[in-house]
Amino acid sequence: MATLEPAAEEWPLLPDWSVSQWFNTEAPLSLSDLRGRVVMLFSFQMLCPGCVAEALPQAKRLRETFCEDHLAVIGLHTVFEHHEAMGPAALAAFIHEYRLTFPIAVDRARADNPVPETMARYGLRGTPSLLLVDRAGRLRRHHFGHLPDLQLGAAVSRLLAEHPAPWERQPQSVAEPLDGRCEEGVCTV
Amino acid sequence: MATLEPAAEEWPLLPDWSVSQWFNTEAPLSLSDLRGRVVMLFSFQMLCPGCVAEALPQAKRLRETFCEDHLAVIGLHTVFEHHEAMGPAALAAFIHEYRLTFPIAVDRARADNPVPETMARYGLRGTPSLLLVDRAGRLRRHHFGHLPDLQLGAAVSRLLAEHPAPWERQPQSVAEPLDGRCEEGVCTV
Amino acid sequence: MATLEPAAEEWPLLPDWSVSQWFNTEAPLSLSDLRGRVVMLFSFQMLCPGCVAEALPQAKRLRETFCEDHLAVIGLHTVFEHHEAMGPAALAAFIHEYRLTFPIAVDRARADNPVPETMARYGLRGTPSLLLVDRAGRLRRHHFGHLPDLQLGAAVSRLLAEHPAPWERQPQSVAEPLDGRCEEGVCTV
Amino acid sequence: MATLEPAAEEWPLLPDWSVSQWFNTEAPLSLSDLRGRVVMLFSFQMLCPGCVAEALPQAKRLRETFCEDHLAVIGLHTVFEHHEAMGPAALAAFIHEYRLTFPIAVDRARADNPVPETMARYGLRGTPSLLLVDRAGRLRRHHFGHLPDLQLGAAVSRLLAEHPAPWERQPQSVAEPLDGRCEEGVCTV
Repeated sequence: MATLEPAAEEWPLLPDWSVSQWFNTEAPLSLSDLRGRVVMLFSFQMLCPGCVAEALPQAKRLRETFCEDHLAVIGLHTVFEHHEAMGPAALAAFIHEYRLTFPIAVDRARADNPVPETMARYGLRGTPSLLLVDRAGRLRRHHFGHLPDLQLGAAVSRLLAEHPAPWERQPQSVAEPLDGRCEEGVCTV
Repeated sequence: MATLEPAAEEWPLLPDWSVSQWFNTEAPLSLSDLRGRVVMLFSFQMLCPGCVAEALPQAKRLRETFCEDHLAVIGLHTVFEHHEAMGPAALAAFIHEYRLTFPIAVDRARADNPVPETMARYGLRGTPSLLLVDRAGRLRRHHFGHLPDLQLGAAVSRLLAEHPAPWERQPQSVAEPLDGRCEEGVCTV
Repeated sequence: MATLEPAAEEWPLLPDWSVSQWFNTEAPLSLSDLRGRVVMLFSFQMLCPGCVAEALPQAKRLRETFCEDHLAVIGLHTVFEHHEAMGPAALAAFIHEYRLTFPIAVDRARADNPVPETMARYGLRGTPSLLLVDRAGRLRRHHFGHLPDLQLGAAVSRLLAEHPAPWERQPQSVAEPLDGRCEEGVCTV
Repeated sequence: MATLEPAAEEWPLLPDWSVSQWFNTEAPLSLSDLRGRVVMLFSFQMLCPGCVAEALPQAKRLRETFCEDHLAVIGLHTVFEHHEAMGPAALAAFIHEYRLTFPIAVDRARADNPVPETMARYGLRGTPSLLLVDRAGRLRRHHFGHLPDLQLGAAVSRLLAEHPAPWERQPQSVAEPLDGRCEEGVCTV
């Protein structure tokens, strides 16, 4: 096959995020802890209309469609403007009102720059931004703006089908799949 | 005709609002200043999903559809929960991000009660709430939740057609209608 | 009041339609029979995508929002292309599948012209076309394409508020309004 | 991994369709001709509201999202009711008006049964029905009703990633991918 994209091994490892606070998770999560799962990272701001209208509903659908054992859906609150309006207390209220249940991280603010640490580290251009990381921790897709469900579902599924090895090394989670609907990472509803 | 609703004269005058701050207007507005116009008041909270998804887009459409000379569209930010997240600075950022251009008032907070003054005075049950006031200042419709565009367009139009007298007393505005599209309060696009 | 549109009396009477077949009505309807009611006429073709996606759902909403006693909603099947695909049998199937319950007329075909009689008589430019007729039978609005619900609700309501005289002459219908929700032609749900 | 679904080899081959007429293709297509590609078959009726509102727009999106070299999108007009309204001439008008450009087959009618041949052979319960066939011709998914884009995108992508062998045997198509956007069957826009 004449492929136009680099082989999976050539994609860069995504460095870990820098987070000052977590919501919807008992303990802080690191990207390396999630090795073995595909990770879908939604960078958003709570007062960004496109995030509220499109990206976050899509994150919810993604969470409902795929198994948590194989796909981690993570929100990353990357505040680069209106900092006074989008602090952690405001975010907590937003998460409650919009019934968001997946883990959400607050990107660590920097003293000398309105752009927070992880946003700068990842080179994000704005919100919403979608970062799709494979089971080996490599950044496979970085998209600024909205990605239609057909494309996103295809991209996620393609990564779920890859690299069974590291994932198989997590026997406890696979042995007890989320309510029995978990088949190769795709929930059959 | 056997009518099931009271005659217009029997509806109560809506008392004026109590507002601590205004956005999108050079000077504070009072309900009595708007006498002669129909007033559509949208009570909302910036972190209320139904307000963001339905009520505020509807307020924008209303503003674009009817003439400002005859219909005043006013937002009333009635914060009764998550006060720490929805202060005036946060609201300013929200108004900017969502491109809201009609006048928006901050309902005056009370020291001893989470429900702000105007919200209590008007007996609002939650957000969004719609209050429709006729040219004579009488409350003609009070609706909690979403009202479909067909019904709202009909209700507004019905009040616009009433009480020509006070409105005729504003000759300067009628003589120079908003870009010539203003016909009996209905913009014909 | 400086009005920019002609007084109601100056609008032309809409001539009656020419119809070869009716659906959803026991007896044929004529426009003159409907005098006293506002008439909303939707000209459509069953294979016109804009009619299916927008105009007919809007006609349904209109039917559910306003009282039949005061507003007649009528579909007019004005086939000017693909005649072989949109005959009466096909239309019957379409009406059944799309659960249309308001009266629908088949515009009378002409032997020498693909454009049917009523469509030519009314000067319609295509489908969907909306014709709004007041209680006195005068054409008050003619729109080619989609009209947003806010504007249509306003236009209908404005005509419902006019000309109470002929309508009051129908005491039997007003005495027994449609499930008690009928107030001056506007259903308050 | 404890998998809950049969291995790909165990899925049944989908028998070929029986078609009386084709649209949007120069020559008739058979399922066996499409071996090497994933085949997404949309069974629909032109007067089925769910087909018009959901399934056919989804088929269009699918066609625009994935490469024709790797995914064949086929419409199958399975008329089992209102036969007089949905003949080939009516379908031709429908295809033209709705701007459908992918190949569409007319399921062969039977003299003694309202359900056409392929519909019976495949055991379809109604319209819309979605049949997803892998590169080896095996039926991998059969769904009656609507399938959300996320799920469908995932299912298609998963099959596109399978069975490279038969597909590699089509070097001419892979050597000249559809406007250069074709990467492992997924168009990167």
